[in-house]
Order: sequence, then structure tokens, then C-alpha cells
Amino acid sequence: MSENISSNSDRLKPNELLMLLLANKGTYLSGEDISKKFGITRSAIWKQINSLRDIGYVIKSSPRLGYCLDESPDLLLPEEIWSKSDLTVLGSKIYYYSITGSTNEDAKKLAREGVPDGTLVIAEKQHKARGRMGRAWNSPDGGLWLSVILRPNFVPMDAPKLTIMTAVAVTEAIIQTTGIHAEIKWPNDILADGKKVCGILTEMSAEMDAINHVIIGVGINVNNNDFPDELKGIGTSLKQIKGENINRLALLSALLKKLEYYYIKAENEGFHEVFEKWRSLCINLGKKINITGKNDVFEGTAIDIDEFGALLVRTENGEVVRVLSGDVSLR
Amino acid sequence: MSENISSNSDRLKPNELLMLLLANKGTYLSGEDISKKFGITRSAIWKQINSLRDIGYVIKSSPRLGYCLDESPDLLLPEEIWSKSDLTVLGSKIYYYSITGSTNEDAKKLAREGVPDGTLVIAEKQHKARGRMGRAWNSPDGGLWLSVILRPNFVPMDAPKLTIMTAVAVTEAIIQTTGIHAEIKWPNDILADGKKVCGILTEMSAEMDAINHVIIGVGINVNNNDFPDELKGIGTSLKQIKGENINRLALLSALLKKLEYYYIKAENEGFHEVFEKWRSLCINLGKKINITGKNDVFEGTAIDIDEFGALLVRTENGEVVRVLSGDVSLR
Repeated sequence: MSENISSNSDRLKPNELLMLLLANKGTYLSGEDISKKFGITRSAIWKQINSLRDIGYVIKSSPRLGYCLDESPDLLLPEEIWSKSDLTVLGSKIYYYSITGSTNEDAKKLAREGVPDGTLVIAEKQHKARGRMGRAWNSPDGGLWLSVILRPNFVPMDAPKLTIMTAVAVTEAIIQTTGIHAEIKWPNDILADGKKVCGILTEMSAEMDAINHVIIGVGINVNNNDFPDELKGIGTSLKQIKGENINRLALLSALLKKLEYYYIKAENEGFHEVFEKWRSLCINLGKKINITGKNDVFEGTAIDIDEFGALLVRTENGEVVRVLSGDVSLR
Repeated sequence: MSENISSNSDRLKPNELLMLLLANKGTYLSGEDISKKFGITRSAIWKQINSLRDIGYVIKSSPRLGYCLDESPDLLLPEEIWSKSDLTVLGSKIYYYSITGSTNEDAKKLAREGVPDGTLVIAEKQHKARGRMGRAWNSPDGGLWLSVILRPNFVPMDAPKLTIMTAVAVTEAIIQTTGIHAEIKWPNDILADGKKVCGILTEMSAEMDAINHVIIGVGINVNNNDFPDELKGIGTSLKQIKGENINRLALLSALLKKLEYYYIKAENEGFHEVFEKWRSLCINLGKKINITGKNDVFEGTAIDIDEFGALLVRTENGEVVRVLSGDVSLR
């Protein structure tokens, strides 16, 4: 147990002391027991306890009783995720940053270096985050900014379905954790109160018949309140809707659990269940929409997604068009 | 005109003196005219002429007549490509190496750094080349090893068609340049005399609805003769078949011209023509084949490719199966 905890480091092995404290939250653990368990001196324990306190952990100590974790800081630390989630694929490795440029860029780099399926990159804050088509993405403290590195066994043609899968997982996690009525706007936005609370940016590196890796970037406006002028009226946060702080860790845990469930299911049985869920959560179906493509805009009624995850749109002359690309606006 | 030519450098602007000599091959150019044209001293010209001679150019010089390019070395230098080809998209930038690890790896790195559509990476030799699925690829001197960076405007789902496009372009370029009866084995091998003369490795970086870049790696066994033991009986070179050295530059020029033609066509009108050509060049159609997938092997008769570039195979019970992935062997 040589690692010191810090709020801005790659931490691929859990800090065992923190894991122990989390597993026994509210209970005193004697310094002697901890010392025996990890084979370290009591002054080494004291040092680690203090470094946990430095990043916001409230840990009571008593010469007689030992240490008792009372409160965790509002940080998405890997140990918090590991201790709360019963995950088998996601989070096998977690790269955690107080601040980074872009979790998707970090993830791409890590993926090229060979990190395993399910590796996560989580940041409290991003200063160069991007949305689709290279658009800037506002990522202050208080949000949930993460990227998931997947190495699915299916063909590249199936990869767009992972965006649909993620949209379903995020929406269900928001509903489950906060009670907020979130909905999906095709292809990759989550709306609540008619405004955007989450964007998903899925990127892929592939050979023609095999995926090297897929990076799913998820940005959820949770407790962040400040939106730049150009997003006012378009973006909102779960806190703004709910009128109170949201437990980010609970939301993240729920999201990871849902994502893992659908991912394992997709690899084994395909995307049938995801598509069914998607149909019930999507705001576009049955509605008139405008599709803005690279070269044109056209109108129609969204009727379904097809087996590839493309949106099927019935145009005014009755033709059904497959839409794989472009922005959709509700009319 | 500050650049010195060398056989192992990124050379993104043409060496103007070499371009001039190539355009006037067999003709004397006076030192005075060259000196005036480029605004450099006659001793600077002399220095550059000697550096060209160092890499194998045969340049006659006469105090009275000036300089005359007699013979080019057997090198795939950018200036040779630019001077022989009438290309508008491909070769806008050419990265040329005497030796590199893998042109596809170089190309991926360059693509991430933002080089334009049509950029080429060419190496005389690769020491860490890869084929599909991470398999090693033998790349000694004498072959044609290049990667093309494309930024097509179509959706990722269309990207596999670029492999088909490249297979058609390579096959036609081989037939046109050498007269050798080359054929395509689905999805990405070119055979001649029943042995492999070319492999294509297409890799893609994409968002779900837009391609960032596609790297098409092409490896053609041209004048290379030595095959490692495991490739004997499987691989061959154009030289082995033809019994004489092949002009690599002529082959490369023909390939680039074909590739560019089909690429521009694909962006404007789609892949119809490529697919038609493919059908006439593919060795698999109408034949019994074995398909080796990730988990199984099955038999059937290849009947066509579908609109996505997937191979359609009729199995013994009459079912038609779409094959997107896997190795195909003729039975």
C-alpha cells in the first residue's frame, strides 16, 4: 500500500485504506487492526488518513476507538465507484483527473496504448471538451464528465448502436436516481424540461471488419449551474430542474450499472432490448422534425429506428428515408 | 529553394530543381537559366545536383550545355510521383521514407495531426508493418508500401466500400501496368497465379455519423523476391510472375490515378461503378468458399456483394448470409 491518494492522478489500483474505510463507513476501525491488515506502521496510517482529509474526507479519530469515515467529499474518486458498484467489465481500470483537457482525448490515447475493455476516464472538470463535429462542450465542476473505452466483439457497422445504448442507459439512470423525466432526442442528446442535460460523443477506431476500440464520451449537466450565453435556453442541469443538489456518485453508479448490463447483453444477444427501451424514451417518434444534413434540410415525421440504429423518417410525399447523420430539430 | 534532397525526409514541398530536371528529362538545361529561374548561385545548383547524384540520379553535366537528367534511381520519391501524375486530391502532401515502422501507423499519427484529404505516406521498406488483425506483413525493399489518408464526406457505414474501391484500383493498375492477370479475393487480397501479391488494410477513425479519417494501407509485392517461410506458397511478387523487374513508379502512378478517379466518383455519385468493376474482377463469385469467422467456420457459395459491400453467401440449405467479417478461403 505504497500509494498516496491525491485528487489528480491516475490511480489504477485502489487505495486499500480508503476502500476499507468506505466499506465500514460510520464504524470505527482500530489503528492496530488496520496496521496488522496492511502491514504498515500506525504513523503511516496517520499520514494516509491526513491525505484523505486533505481532499475532503471527514474522518473522525479517537486514540481508543481508531478511525471512522464520516463523510466523503463530492468527488468521483475511483474508490467511491468501486465500493458502490458491482461491476465486472466497466471500471476495471479508472483514470481519474481533477481537471483534464478532454476525457475523450485521454481515452483515445489510452485506447491506443492498449488499456482493457471497460476502462473509464473521469474528470471533475474539462477545459478543452468537445461535442459532436468538433463543437465545444462546456464542462465546469459539478457535472459528470466521463469516457468509456469499449472493445466490443461486433463489427464496426454495429458501433452506432452503442450511442443508442448509452442514451438509454443515461436516461434510465437519470430517471432512477433523480425522478426527473428525461427523454432522448435522436441521435445522442438527453433532454429534460425540453432542454439538453446530456450529450454523448461516440468515437471509433476500426479496421473494416473489426473494431479496435470505441470511446463513448458522456457529459451530463448535474450540479453545474453556469451556462455560457450561447447555451442559455438550450442547456440545463439536473440541479436546476430539481432545485437541489444531485448525488453525482449515485447517478454515476446507476449509469455504469445500466451501461454494463446493456453492453454485456449486446455482445451476447444483440441490441433488441436497448432498441425497445429507446423507442419508449425517444421524444422524436411520431413527431414532425427537421433534419439538417451537410447539404440540405428536409422535413418529415420520425417513425422508428431501423436495425442499424438509423432514424426512419417519413417525408411529406410518403417516402421513408433513413437518416444516419445530421442534426434533428423538433418542429 | 532551401531544401536539400535526401532519401529519408518528410518532403512536403517539391524540390524545384528536381521537378525541373524531371520535366526536361534527356534535355540539357543551362546552369545560367537554372540560376536565374530559382535565384540561386551556380555553386548552390552544383551542390544540389550532387545531392541528387548521391541518391542515385544520373545527371550529365557539361560546362557548355549545363545539366541533363539521364536516369532516375528506383525510388518512389514524391517529385517522381508529382511529375508523372495528374492528380488533384491524392498526393497533395507526400511523406516519403527510406524506411519506417509502418506507413499506416505514420498515417494515423499524421491524420490525428490534421493533414489534408489525399495525403500519402510512402516507404521503401517497413520494419514493423502489419496486415489485418495485427498480423505481421513482410515489407522489404522492392515492394510498394503506402498509406493513403482520406477524409471522405460519407458516413462510417460506407467506409468498408473503400476497401473494395482500393482492391479494384490496385487490380486494374496491376493489369494495366504489367499485363498480369490479377484478381480480387474478398475482402482485401489481390491474387495473381493464385498467390497473394497485395494486401489492403483499411482503418478508420470516426464519430458515429461522420468519418474523421480513413487510412488505406496498400502493400504490393512488386520486385521483392524473398518471402519468409510461412509465406512460401502463399505469397508471390509481380516480378516472380513476370520474370522481370516491374517499374514501381509506373505502377504507383497508375494506382493513384485509378484510386483518385474512383474516390472522387464515390463522393459524388457513390460506389456503383466500383461495385460493377469489382464483380468482374472478384475470384470468389460463383465459387464454393469457406468462411472463417471469430467463432465458427461455414461453407457456401459466394453470390454477390450487397449495397454495403458485405459478401452474400448462399449456404447449403439455401439461406443467404451476409458476411462482413472473417477470412475467406476458396474450396
